[in-house]
Order: sequence, then C-alpha cells, then structure tokens
Amino acid sequence: MSTPLSPDSLAVLARQAIEVPSWAYGNSGTRFKVFGTPGTPRDPFEKVADAAQVHRYTGLAPAVAIHIPWDKVEDYDALTGYAHDQGVAIGTVNSNTFQDDDYKFGALTHEDAAIRRKAIDHHFECIDIMGRTGSRDLKIWLAEGSNYPGQADLRGRQDRLQESLQEIYARLSGDQRLVLEYKFFEPAFYHTDVPDWGTSYAQVSALGERAMVCLDTGHHAPGTNIEFIVMQLLRLGKLGSFDFNSRFYADDDLIVGAADPFQLFRILFEVLRGGGLDEDSPVAFMLDQCHNVEDKIPGQIRSVLNVQEMTARALLVDREALATAQRAGDVLGANAIFMDAYQTDVRPALAEWRASRGLPEDPMAAYAASGYFEKISAERVGGTQASWGA
Amino acid sequence: MSTPLSPDSLAVLARQAIEVPSWAYGNSGTRFKVFGTPGTPRDPFEKVADAAQVHRYTGLAPAVAIHIPWDKVEDYDALTGYAHDQGVAIGTVNSNTFQDDDYKFGALTHEDAAIRRKAIDHHFECIDIMGRTGSRDLKIWLAEGSNYPGQADLRGRQDRLQESLQEIYARLSGDQRLVLEYKFFEPAFYHTDVPDWGTSYAQVSALGERAMVCLDTGHHAPGTNIEFIVMQLLRLGKLGSFDFNSRFYADDDLIVGAADPFQLFRILFEVLRGGGLDEDSPVAFMLDQCHNVEDKIPGQIRSVLNVQEMTARALLVDREALATAQRAGDVLGANAIFMDAYQTDVRPALAEWRASRGLPEDPMAAYAASGYFEKISAERVGGTQASWGA
Amino acid sequence: MSTPLSPDSLAVLARQAIEVPSWAYGNSGTRFKVFGTPGTPRDPFEKVADAAQVHRYTGLAPAVAIHIPWDKVEDYDALTGYAHDQGVAIGTVNSNTFQDDDYKFGALTHEDAAIRRKAIDHHFECIDIMGRTGSRDLKIWLAEGSNYPGQADLRGRQDRLQESLQEIYARLSGDQRLVLEYKFFEPAFYHTDVPDWGTSYAQVSALGERAMVCLDTGHHAPGTNIEFIVMQLLRLGKLGSFDFNSRFYADDDLIVGAADPFQLFRILFEVLRGGGLDEDSPVAFMLDQCHNVEDKIPGQIRSVLNVQEMTARALLVDREALATAQRAGDVLGANAIFMDAYQTDVRPALAEWRASRGLPEDPMAAYAASGYFEKISAERVGGTQASWGA
Amino acid sequence: MSTPLSPDSLAVLARQAIEVPSWAYGNSGTRFKVFGTPGTPRDPFEKVADAAQVHRYTGLAPAVAIHIPWDKVEDYDALTGYAHDQGVAIGTVNSNTFQDDDYKFGALTHEDAAIRRKAIDHHFECIDIMGRTGSRDLKIWLAEGSNYPGQADLRGRQDRLQESLQEIYARLSGDQRLVLEYKFFEPAFYHTDVPDWGTSYAQVSALGERAMVCLDTGHHAPGTNIEFIVMQLLRLGKLGSFDFNSRFYADDDLIVGAADPFQLFRILFEVLRGGGLDEDSPVAFMLDQCHNVEDKIPGQIRSVLNVQEMTARALLVDREALATAQRAGDVLGANAIFMDAYQTDVRPALAEWRASRGLPEDPMAAYAASGYFEKISAERVGGTQASWGA
Repeated sequence: MSTPLSPDSLAVLARQAIEVPSWAYGNSGTRFKVFGTPGTPRDPFEKVADAAQVHRYTGLAPAVAIHIPWDKVEDYDALTGYAHDQGVAIGTVNSNTFQDDDYKFGALTHEDAAIRRKAIDHHFECIDIMGRTGSRDLKIWLAEGSNYPGQADLRGRQDRLQESLQEIYARLSGDQRLVLEYKFFEPAFYHTDVPDWGTSYAQVSALGERAMVCLDTGHHAPGTNIEFIVMQLLRLGKLGSFDFNSRFYADDDLIVGAADPFQLFRILFEVLRGGGLDEDSPVAFMLDQCHNVEDKIPGQIRSVLNVQEMTARALLVDREALATAQRAGDVLGANAIFMDAYQTDVRPALAEWRASRGLPEDPMAAYAASGYFEKISAERVGGTQASWGA
Repeated sequence: MSTPLSPDSLAVLARQAIEVPSWAYGNSGTRFKVFGTPGTPRDPFEKVADAAQVHRYTGLAPAVAIHIPWDKVEDYDALTGYAHDQGVAIGTVNSNTFQDDDYKFGALTHEDAAIRRKAIDHHFECIDIMGRTGSRDLKIWLAEGSNYPGQADLRGRQDRLQESLQEIYARLSGDQRLVLEYKFFEPAFYHTDVPDWGTSYAQVSALGERAMVCLDTGHHAPGTNIEFIVMQLLRLGKLGSFDFNSRFYADDDLIVGAADPFQLFRILFEVLRGGGLDEDSPVAFMLDQCHNVEDKIPGQIRSVLNVQEMTARALLVDREALATAQRAGDVLGANAIFMDAYQTDVRPALAEWRASRGLPEDPMAAYAASGYFEKISAERVGGTQASWGA
Repeated sequence: MSTPLSPDSLAVLARQAIEVPSWAYGNSGTRFKVFGTPGTPRDPFEKVADAAQVHRYTGLAPAVAIHIPWDKVEDYDALTGYAHDQGVAIGTVNSNTFQDDDYKFGALTHEDAAIRRKAIDHHFECIDIMGRTGSRDLKIWLAEGSNYPGQADLRGRQDRLQESLQEIYARLSGDQRLVLEYKFFEPAFYHTDVPDWGTSYAQVSALGERAMVCLDTGHHAPGTNIEFIVMQLLRLGKLGSFDFNSRFYADDDLIVGAADPFQLFRILFEVLRGGGLDEDSPVAFMLDQCHNVEDKIPGQIRSVLNVQEMTARALLVDREALATAQRAGDVLGANAIFMDAYQTDVRPALAEWRASRGLPEDPMAAYAASGYFEKISAERVGGTQASWGA
Repeated sequence: MSTPLSPDSLAVLARQAIEVPSWAYGNSGTRFKVFGTPGTPRDPFEKVADAAQVHRYTGLAPAVAIHIPWDKVEDYDALTGYAHDQGVAIGTVNSNTFQDDDYKFGALTHEDAAIRRKAIDHHFECIDIMGRTGSRDLKIWLAEGSNYPGQADLRGRQDRLQESLQEIYARLSGDQRLVLEYKFFEPAFYHTDVPDWGTSYAQVSALGERAMVCLDTGHHAPGTNIEFIVMQLLRLGKLGSFDFNSRFYADDDLIVGAADPFQLFRILFEVLRGGGLDEDSPVAFMLDQCHNVEDKIPGQIRSVLNVQEMTARALLVDREALATAQRAGDVLGANAIFMDAYQTDVRPALAEWRASRGLPEDPMAAYAASGYFEKISAERVGGTQASWGA
C-alpha cells in the first residue's frame, strides 16, 4: 500500500466523524439576496435525506445537527427513525433566539424577565427534543448584542446571561452537555454578548463540567491565531465542539479549508496534539456553512473531505523530530518538518483508504454520477424551499 | 451671537446639503432577521413623505436618492411633483443588479453577453428615469464578485466591466454623471470586482470627465485612513460623491458618526481643505444607512445633524495656525490646534443657526413632538412594508 | 462655578491618579529609526525628574513606573527618596525578558530550564526592588512567541508559563500583586504566548487572588470592543491595571485618546460603571506610550489630561436616564444620552477645577513657559541618552 | 521523467529569477531587539558572497538588490566585478530616506525645500550608482507620513511628492526605471504618504512610462485580496516589481509563503495569467524579508524555493478546463480545478528539474553540508556586523 499513513494514523481517520448541519441543504444567502436552487428540501426529512448522501460517499458524516425551530416536526421518533434508515443519526440540537420579534433587543440577556423566560423555555424545549433524538449536545449561539454605544448595559446583560444559562444548564440530564459558541460580531455591530473565547470560557466555567465552549473557525477578529485558542481550550479542558467553515473577512461561512487550507492544517495539528481526536475526546466536530452560490450536497462532501485531508496531513507530522528541532531552537528545521507534512499530497492515500472501506475513491464524482441531484430536482417541486427562515 | 462660527463658515453651512436615501425609511436588517416596524412606508410616495420630514426639521436634506427597481413607479412626473410638494427633490438614481437570479454570477461583468446586455439595459432605464426626475447622478454599486478562488476570471471580469461601463457612460447626456462606488467585500467574499478606490478610479478615468468615484465611508479594510483617500480623490478631481454611514467592523451601515465621530471630523476637514464644500464643488453628499433596530426618521435626522456638527467643528480649525505649526514640525502644537476644534461643542451655535433660519433648535425633539410617527403608524396599515426586496 | 460636574464626580476626579512610565522620557522609535532629542535623560534620576513635571502641572501623575533593567540603580533608597523630593513616588515595577540574547526563543516559556531559571530569578530581583521602592505591582509583559508555524510547541510553552508564574507569584509578599499583560502580536509574529485577555485571565486565575490582568489599550485585534473586555474583567474581579495609549493599526503606542477619543470615553465609562474608580478599586492606571516624534514631557502631560477629560465626560453620563432608555429599548434615546455627555466640552470645567487646587489652568502652556525644557537641554549634555536599550 | 510539468511550464521555470536583497544577510529585528548571529557580513562584499550562495544552490537568484547608503562602497566597479565573480549581478538599487535626522518629518514630501533637495539628490546618487552597477531599477520606498491627526498637511505632501518624483524621474536614462512601493502603515502610524496601490499608481502614471508600481506582499490591510491588485496592475501595465515576503498581521517580513502558501499560489497564478512571467515581462521579482530569528542564508534559499514551488503549482492549473467551468457558473468545479493544482506536490518534479540542470536536488541540505556557514562563522570575527543601520 502506497499510503504514507501509519496504522495509528489510520485508526484516527477511522474514527473521525463530522456532523453536518441540516440547514446547509436549505437556501441561504446574504442580506442582499438568497438564491433559490432546484431540489432544495422542503422539510427536515428531506434535509436528512440529503445529509445522508454526504455520509454515503465519504463515510465521514454519520450525524446531522438540527436547528430548532427550523427542524421542528410533529414526531421526533419518526425523524430519528428516518435518519437511522438513511444511515445517519440526529446530532447536536441548535437553539435559535434570533428570528422572533421579541428578541430584537436580546433573549437570554434581555432586560425584560418575561422575554428571558421565553428564551429559556425555548432551550427547555430543545433539551426535550434532545431526549427524544438521543442528542448529547445543546449548542447555543446567541445573536445578542447592540448596535450603538449606550444602547445596552453591557454588564447587566452579562450577568443576566449567566443567570439564564444556569437555568438551562440545570435542566440537562445524563450525559447531555451545553456548548456555548462565541462570535466576534454580527448580527450586532457594536457589541456582542459572547464575542470571544474568553467570555464563553468564563460563562461555561461558572456553570459546571458539562458546559463547554464551541469554537467556530469563522468567528474571530482578523489576525487571530485560531490554533492557539484550540490549544488553550483543550489545555483547559473546555473545548466542546467545532463549527467548521472558512472566511476571508467576516463570517463568510464558506467551505472549510477553502480560504486558507494551511490554517485548517494548523488547527487540526493542535487538535491532534491536544488529544482532540483521541478515543475519549470530548470534542465534537461539525460543519457550519452557507452554500450561497455553490451546490449544497457537493459543497458538504467537499467540506468533510477537506477536514479529512488536513487531518491526514497533520497526522504526517513527525512529532518526535519536530520536538527535537523545537528544543534546539532550530527555527527553519522545525518549520520544515511541519511544512513537509503540509505539502504532502495525501489524496491518493485517502482514495486508497476509502476503497479499502467500500467507499468510492472519488466521492465528488461518485455523487455526481449517482443521479441523486437530478432525482430531487425532479421530485421536489412545489412546497416551500427550506431556508433560514423556515 | 455666541457662535464661534465665522461668516464664511456660516456660508458653508448654509449650502450644505445631504441627500437621504429612500430605502432608509423601509425595513432593513441582517441575513439573520429583518424586523418590521409600525408606520413603515409601503410605496415610494410614502418614502418621499418620510424623507421630507428630515428636511423639514433640519434644513439639511433637500433631496431624496431613489433605488431602481425598489422605487419604480408608473409616473415619475407624479413622484417628482409629489416630492416638490413636500419640499424636496428627487436626487441620485441608484441602479440595482443584485436581486435578480440572472445576476448570481455577475451583471456588468458576467461571462454571458446576454446577461451583461440585460444589466446595461437596466442602467439605460435608470438614465431614462433620471431624465424624468431631473437627477444628475447615476450611482452604480456592484455586488459582483466571487466566493471561491478559481470561481471567476478576475481579469476577464475587469475588462468586461470597462466595456459595460463604456456603454452606460455613452448614454449619459447633458450634465448627467456616472459615479462608481467601490466596496471592500460583501456580498461576495473572495473577490469583489470594484473593491477599492484605485479600481474605481482606474475604471472611471477610462470613461471620461463625467465619471467619478463614490466613496462609501463603510467600504474599507480595517485600519484604512479614509480621509487620505478623500484628499487623494479631490486632488485627482475624481471625488463624485459620498455615501455616509459608520461601521465598527464590516459594512455595518450604522448612523454616520456613531462609531467614530473623530474620523468623521477628519474626513470633513479634508473635504473642506480640498474644496469639497466650495460653491462649485462636484461632490455630492448622501447617506447610505440601514436602521435595523432604531427608528428610521429620527435615525436620519440624527445622521444629517452629525454630518453638520462635524462640518462645523472642521470649520473651526484655525488653518493658518495649523499650517504654521505643520511647517515648524511642531507635532503636539499642530495636533492641539486640530483637536481644539474637534473638542469644541458646536451644538449651541448650531441651535442658534437653526433658530435664525426658522428651524427648530432641537430637531429630534421637534420631530418627536410633531405626532408624525403616531400618524403614519395609525395610517399605514395593510399593504406590504417597503424593504430591500421591494 | 460653571462646572457641570457634580460633587461626586469631582471626588472621583480628585482621586484619579495615572502612573507615568520612566521610559516615556527616554528615546524610542520604530525598527527603522530612533530619533534623538535634546534634554533626554541619561539615568533614572533624570527620568524621575521629568516625570515629576507631569504631576507638577496636572496633579494627576503621582507615581512613576520603572522598568528593570533600564532603571537599575545602585541605591533604590536614593531613587525612592529623590522621587519623594520631586513630589512623586516609585510605582509599578516592570520586568524585562526581551533584550537578552538568551531569551531569543523564550524566557518564562523557554524549553531550557536554565533559561527559565534565569528569567524567574530576574523577576525575583524585581520583587526585591519592589520591597525597597514600596511598589505594589509587578507587571509582566512577555515578548515570547514564535515567528513560524511549527517553530514552537504552543502547548508546552503554555504549561511552562504557568509553572514559572507559580514560582514568581509565590515570592510575592504583603499586598504585592502580579499583573500579567496580554498582547495580540509583536515582537513575535506567528504566535504570542499571552495573546488575549482570555489567556491572561486563565493564567492568573490559576495563580491566586493577587494575580490580575493588565489591559493595554493598544494590544487587541482590529475591531475588538475593548470596553467589553474592561467590563468583563471588572465583573470577574480580575482587572488589575491599565496600560493606556492609542493606536491606529498595530501597537502604535501613541498618546492615549489621540486616535479614537470616543473609544477612550467608552472605556472610561465602563471603568466607572464597574467600580474601577471607586475608592477601594483594585485597578491601577498607567500610561505606556512611545513619543517617537513628539516632545516627551508635553506628550505625557497631554496624555494624562486626555484621560482626565474623558473621565469627566464619562462622569457626565446621566446613568439613571440611560438605564431607563435601555430598559425601554429606546436605541436612539439611550445613544443620545451617552453621546450628549461625550459631546460636552469639559475643558473649561477642568480648568476651573485645576485652578481651585492651585494648579495651572492650562498645564501645557504652563510647562512650556516654565523654561524646564530649555534648562534640561542645556544641562544634559554628554553621557548616553536613555532609550529602550539602557 | 515523472514531472507533471509541461515543456512550456519548464520554460517558465527556466527563466524565473528572483533578486535577493543584500540586507537579508545582515542582522534585523524588531523595535524591541536585534539579535546578532555568527558569520554575519560586515560589508557589502560579504553580503554579495552570501547572496551568491542562494543562487549556487537554487539557480533562482542571479541578482542581488542593494540599499544605499547601507551598501555604499568606494568602488562600484569592484563590487560589480566581485558579484560577477561570484556568479551573480547587482540588481535593483534601493534608496533610503528614513535613517537621517533630517528626514524626521519627511524627505520627498518635506515642507522644507532644502530637505527635499537633499532627498532628491540622494536619489540622483542612487541613479549614478545604477549607471555603474548596470542596474535597471531604482526602487523607492518612502517611510514618510505622520503619527497624529493634524500633524501634517496630507494634500501638500502629496503634491510635493509628485514634484520630487518628477525631478528624480527626469534624471533616469536609457532603460532605467523608477518603481514606487506603497505601504499600508509603519513607520508612520496615522498617515503614510504612499499607503496603497491606488496612490502609487496615480503618482507613477503622472510620471511616465518607465515609472511603475512595486507591490510588496506584506504591505496591505487585513483582508485585502492581493492577487486582485496583481491582476489590476498587470492589466493597467503598471506592475513593475514584487517585494516578496509574508505576514500574519503587520509587515512581518517573514519568509515568503510561510504564513499563507495558498495566497502565494493565487498571486503567482495571476502573475502567470497576466503575462508577468512571459519572456518580455516588465515585472521584476525580489525578496524583501527580515530573518530575525532564523538563519539567513537558508532562510533565503527556502524563500526562493517557495516562490518556485508555488509557481510550479500555478503552472499546473488546467486553464482551459478552468475557463470552461467559469463560463458555466460551475463554482465547485472551477474551484476544484484550481485547488487540484494547488494540492499537487511538485517537490519531486522540481528536484528532478534541478538535477537536470546540475543543481542539488535538495538545496537546503546541500547548503547545510557545504560548510559555508562554519567557514564564515570562523572567518568573520571582529568588525561590525551589518544591519539596517550600516
């Protein structure tokens, strides 16, 4: 076998799993325009069907994250069963407090206790759904903040956020977890209530052991060294999950690895270095992307392949030689060892790996040849195409 | 009179005029949510009525910029006449090539000549409307670009852009002008076809004298010295217009002067220094903002007042003393002269100025007391509230 | 008295104190050039003499921070006594681990235990000096990091950092404190070992109660909401000190308030809101600036005045009215209350305040008229002008 | 031969040449510290000797750029002859107006005509040296700007810059050229007189055909799409030269391709696409880096290899297939064609290419084995190590 990957590395690849988001299969766009596309799902079942395609061709995406209320259904057993039939599971449950007029000035942080109550209750509903779908993680991303200096009481909001999270956290049971995402800006422009990893870390540390931080790779200020944060959160035992995507400037939500593949490599190296892909790792991996102009299912296939490719490259780093060079202060030598892994083309080895597991060597081509897109384009006529609003 | 403003300065203030955008009165938001509000206009006439309120209380906003097709009407004479009756004129006409499915991959830059044709024809229509509304300026902001490296042929698009603009420019008549706006990013994430002033400048310079650059204060990379660009474009004779707004990170479209009032002061100082407020100045001043969470009409009133206040402060700079300190290399002295003007509270003097012209001393309070908002909230029931999509 | 400042506000101003850094009086510059200037101090005593001028004309700067080894002297009692005679005290002691060849690849984080030992011992020396000068705070800013991916073991360095800090912290006695500064980048370009407030917070939280975070206003990524971090650190009880300065892009170390006075106002508002100027506040205020092209003593006078001015404006915010508007979701109303304070010219009131305390109304003019600069220019001839290297 | 490179591609590689800067072999650092290193050159001859090593092992660096006054010698014929004997030529001449006290407030832009005269005369001297060394290009990078708003008259400086450049340009003869570099910030913090490509373009366009723009890859605001600027300047016929390096945040001057290899690939793709590597291309390629912590000669070898590798990858792009996918609006298809080239490991093919030309397959290893470093470390004892100051 021509693969440069060691047995240990192959074992890591074998257990790598990346949740795909149900909303990636619906329409999305910018504030300027959302383009419609043929074959777009009209309900959560159709989204799950599309998500299952990604797993079928890659073996990398055994679970689908859902978003409430976008993925509300009458019967969660039916949805869970349908997913199972498609070969996937329902994964993380995402709450949503940004599309209700009541939340214009906040949800978990709102000045008005009645609105906080409503937002907390929404999270209780999510936890109930988790119980029915067998999901472990409740992921909370908050759109809360303000647009103008003086508009909001930054401190009061932070205190109320902690109180609201306490209530939600107390509702968890068994091995359920709460993961709190941070985001630098948008949709609020002046201040965001959870803008950085430090805030998320301080908030979840005050909750307890089953509260963790979610790191979205697109949610940082320009110039931020993201792999450093990965290292730090793993070191502090608080890295709960990843939202993978890529960006050139803002929160572009592009295909992970598309904007800066080397950065993705460095991130995955720190994940490995910190035990994030060990067997008992607490880190969940997810995509969070918006396929505004590209095809959605192939966009997702490309995404999980990108993560796998950079993981494989990161696995190639000769860590012993690297440590020796680092200890010696050999800047160029250490960098060369690191880059040597990054510059290696692992695609042939991964194609072999896939073939050895009964998967197509070229998942993009196999999907394209499958006729699935033509089928859904023909079948899914009428109804309302899923998007962020539904 | 207690005003520190000289007669010359008062003359500048007397001729200061800031166009307000019709779309500021409709609903806007982010990709996550557009909040509705009571009293929102349902058609261009109602937008004009709202815009006229801004002028009524400030004397600063004698024209309303319109956006085609958002402001398409059967009878432009009627719209123009209605505006006149309200005390304002129809100003700049803005084209729109970002909300049609055909423009998913470009409009004036599209690979397909038929789509370029359609986009050029749309601009012809805008020029026809200009003829009927008496507008001087055709403002072109292009949402064109790409999201992924390799997706687009950067060079081919640039060449096609020039060809398309040539056709549009050739259609202008009389004193009509074309102003080309640049924007750093969004809605395209990887590349934007007119991303910076240099590109806009190169493109319009190749067209002719009546083609100019539009500078939107929110459309720059972080750390950009915007007043330098103002200076340079005035020096090159190519500053056609301003789109005023403010931002903390991306193109937030917040109230001008809200995020960094000192920056607005510096910009207006360079405008003055470069003759941009002289009697024969070619520079048009406009707002381009999105009132996502704040009230719209007062948001516009605040905006034009902010521009006026910073203009007044810029007028206070003792330019002779400044030049002396600059020549002497007196860093702190020059900065102190500059800051002294900035730190002066001109609001009492401007209140006096307004009173002397029959305007309310406190336009925000006068508008609030007028009952206009209550009136439109009660009257404008039913119909579809205007927003970017309509 | 025409002052708009309440008695409570005047009490806050009366206890405001801002440490000035000894190194501000020496020469500094960029990697391209350090310009020399007449009258520059040649030793720590001359620096203290210059620093005392700032206090003499403003009443705001009763202490001088020192930097070891730049300010090493034979006899610290003599230095302390000299400062006392000049009307000031010796303040915070700053360690320095960035100008020794041994520290090329780290100091407290170095792979080599012998170099860590040397760096820790240097901090012990600083603590000894604190004992003799009566200083409360040991401030640690670390230049450590790496320039190339792979060069350094991010995680190992973080662990070693904690170990080293544990040793240093254990050496403190009485009410001595350790404050750990964070910095986004520079002099290391790829990774910095304490790049953000979250890292500093995690590191000092693991040490104990007398370990706190130092916030340098110039050490953040573009677009960072600094006042949010101020709020958060005050909320968490971990804001130990400020290094004030301002910047347009990188760590420019310009005069505080020079680049964005509104930001300084917002920061000081959160300081007030969070109790940072209460009588028992644990927050120390310092300048950390580089006067590359401007005169040094007047640059420092301008700096402390800027902090005072923005504090006075922040004190003018009608917090009760603000809270009411915030609770009501009155975006423009709340912002107007906030801005009204910011736009008020407090300089006449502060001039009065100074006069009432026997200080010159115009400290800049009084210093300029004093002849001090002419005196030191004439006297300080020969010797080596102080700069970062000495 | 296993190379995936076509004969046309090999021809491009065969003519690729990258000038190395003499100052890369001296010491450099940050404002905090410059570390010394064994074997550092003490004069321009030793720098040329070191530079020749890069060419010896790579065949890519046949010329050495010099910097005046750092590389001033008594006898330029001797220097030119010495370079020739070492197998290289003297390339671009760089002027320096940032290390003289007279230039504290500007050189070509200074308010004082006498200082402008001095700065212009310095450029005349550089042109004289070009005549003797046979250099084609005079490269001008200006450190000019200001640190505080109000300090400088932005407009007056821009006008004076043009006047000064006119004089310098008029002095050129034969095929000599002037290339004007732009830089976003540093060493000036508030404003820089040539901050962006638009300004450089406007300035050189007003001079004439032999005045061009120099693009330094590290001199842009965060988020700037540099390959777009490459495309635009090639399109406008004004891309005169490149200064290659890489950066994470500011102007870090790291090894080109070290921070974001994919960006370097994209840049080189646009170079190729725009004819920048055609036989008659006007584009000169140079390195401009600072080896603060890594070894200098190997740092330079790594740099030219990085440029070559990314050029080879860019040559692999199937441009016909790419154009087809672009025309079809096939976003993922076009991106895949682009990425396929980027992900290909060209190192074995380039090793073969080198072997076929009598060069070592592994230049880094060959240099390390050569004993050159040990030799210069032993020989170059005493004297003053070269750095930016000498």
